[in-house]
Order: sequence, then structure tokens, then C-alpha cells
Amino acid sequence: MKIYELKRAPNARRVRMFLAEKGIEMAYHQIDLGAGENLAPEFLAKNPAGRIPVLELDDGTYLSETLAICRYFEELHPEPNLFGRTALERATVEMWSRFIEFNLWLPTGMAFRHITGFYKDRETVFPEWGEECKQQALAWFAKLDARLAEQPYVAGERFTIADILALCSIDFGKVVDIRIAPEQRHLQAWHDRVSSRPSARA
Amino acid sequence: MKIYELKRAPNARRVRMFLAEKGIEMAYHQIDLGAGENLAPEFLAKNPAGRIPVLELDDGTYLSETLAICRYFEELHPEPNLFGRTALERATVEMWSRFIEFNLWLPTGMAFRHITGFYKDRETVFPEWGEECKQQALAWFAKLDARLAEQPYVAGERFTIADILALCSIDFGKVVDIRIAPEQRHLQAWHDRVSSRPSARA
Repeated sequence: MKIYELKRAPNARRVRMFLAEKGIEMAYHQIDLGAGENLAPEFLAKNPAGRIPVLELDDGTYLSETLAICRYFEELHPEPNLFGRTALERATVEMWSRFIEFNLWLPTGMAFRHITGFYKDRETVFPEWGEECKQQALAWFAKLDARLAEQPYVAGERFTIADILALCSIDFGKVVDIRIAPEQRHLQAWHDRVSSRPSARA
Repeated sequence: MKIYELKRAPNARRVRMFLAEKGIEMAYHQIDLGAGENLAPEFLAKNPAGRIPVLELDDGTYLSETLAICRYFEELHPEPNLFGRTALERATVEMWSRFIEFNLWLPTGMAFRHITGFYKDRETVFPEWGEECKQQALAWFAKLDARLAEQPYVAGERFTIADILALCSIDFGKVVDIRIAPEQRHLQAWHDRVSSRPSARA
């Protein structure tokens, strides 16, 4: 098995952190996003969305999308469990994972692309829309702070994939000054706790 | 159990179609999105994202997010299987579901909101960004047509949740003139086939 990625990209970090929690060793091949290697025909044959990471299985099958890759490894290596054990816990983990992805991760990514113009060689950017996305992401910092006042982890009593998604999103947001506010102490305490896990440095 | 929704909303259709495929009867309670009922404190206590659908369990637990709700019912009622049977099939269904959600469903929703200004009473709209999203969605119509030239269904050999997501997204897109092109005959044939399922009228 092998993963095509760019180590410094936040999406790559999500899978790396997940695999580190599982104790799974992996071979990596770096893709030069800045040069557009991900948009070349050879890479699009691996992933029609042109995004990293992509997992190549030993039989040559390619799997894309972070959550699909992580869930695949959850099934191959069930422990430690990171997606939930019962039907209700799994649904709760997925609900919070989606809250994070759609309301924090995506707006943060759009803020980055539209404020910095990082990919302006290949897409039209709208800086005002980027600023709007930044505010949308920040609004969810407050919601997460309220959640973490009641529960130690994003999806409940224990560390799950939802925490990995939230940590990688929040850390990525710093590039466009999306930051935890001083008064969001529950969110900050959670951030300190999750950041201290060895997997956070994967 | 009960689902809070708005029947004409495309997100509600995704869950309704899924439940129809499973043969699950459900009680529904309508939420007036136009009047902002979903943003009132009473509803936000059920779902902090302020979105429909929300599933209320018999013990008063609330579950939000279409895919979390559908996967919960997949576990309670495994047949007919709509999320995949093996680890690899499940990952493939999830990969294609995410391709659809992030590249077709989300851009279509943003095109709708930013072109029509449907929610301009509660959000800033950027019509040019809406037009850009429309083009992004249309680019995936071509990718789906190529996929469906090789496979009868979005995720492979058989009907899955990925087909439900694609159908509901494509049908919703018509409101902003996002439509299957005449030359996309594989996509059109798939659309005809999937639309003829009784669940498509749920």
C-alpha cells in the first residue's frame, strides 16, 4: 500500500494522524500541488477529483477521500476504535464529523483559497467571499466551545475521528488568522489536550 | 421516531428516498425554513447547525446530518444494502458519495443560494461566486457521464446511497439551470433508470 499526498497539506495530516492513532505504518509518495501535478492526466486517472490523499492498494486499486480512506483502515484495524462502536455512537461520530467538515473545514479551506489566492493560477478567486467564509468558520468556534463545555471530546466521552478533523481544521485556519478566541477556554483546553497526543505530530 | 424536515427541500428528499428504498415508515414534522424556524433557539437545541432533516429517536436523542441518519438506519435495517458490504465496497461507496457531495451537491446548493438570493434575508450573497459554483457543478456532470459509461451505477455494479445523492443533487440543480447536456447520454440513461425507481417519488 502507498499514499499519494503532500505532507504539509492539511488533508494529508488528517490521514497521517488517523494512521498514527492506529499504529499503522505507511509508505508515502509526495505530489507537488503547487506545480499542479494533481491536475495532470496521470493523477486524475487515480482520482478524478484531482485531490490528495489517494491510497493505492496492493492490487492497484485507488481509494480517494480522507474519510473513505480512514473508514477503510478502521475496518481493517478496528482498534483503537475511532468511528464509534454502536449504531448510535457511529451516527453521532458521523454527525459531528460532518458538522466539522461542512461548517469549519470547508469554510476554512475556501477562506484560504479566496483570501490568499493560493491557487489563482487555476481558479477564479473572490476575496469578499473568502472573508465571509472566515466569519462562518469562526462562528463554529463558538459552537464547538459550547459543545466542549459539556463533553471532553467533539463527539462525546472519548477521542474519535471527529477530534482529528477538528484539530486539523483549526490548526490550518491560522494561515488566514482563524484562531481560538481567549474566552473560548473549553475549546482551548480541548485543543491543548488533543495536540499533546503523539499522533498530532504525525 | 420522527423526522423534522421540509418536504420540498432537496436534503429532505435524500433521506425520504433512502427510507423508501429500505421500506421504513416514518413520521414527519414540517419545519418552515422560509420563516427561519430552523434558526430559532428551539430548533438549534435539536441541531446546532440549524439544518433539516433532524431525526428524533424515541428516547429524545436528536441525530442530524443526512448521511449520519441514513447510515444509522442502514445499521438498524441492513437490507437492502445501500452503503456497501465489504470494507472495499464501503470505502468505494463513501468515496463516490463524497465526490458527489463536495463537487456536485455543495456547489449546486451554493449556486442556488448565491444566484437566486433565496436566503438573502439572513446571509450575504455573491452572485458571481454563485455562477462560478454552477460551472464547478457542471464540470462534474461530465465526470459522472464518463464514470457511467463504465459502470451502471455511480459507485459500481449496483444501486447505492451514492445514486440517491447524485439524483437528488441533479434534480435540485434545475432551479438554477444546471442540467444534463444532450451529449451526456450515459448520465441521462442512468438518470432515467434511477428516476424510475418508486423511491424517487418518496
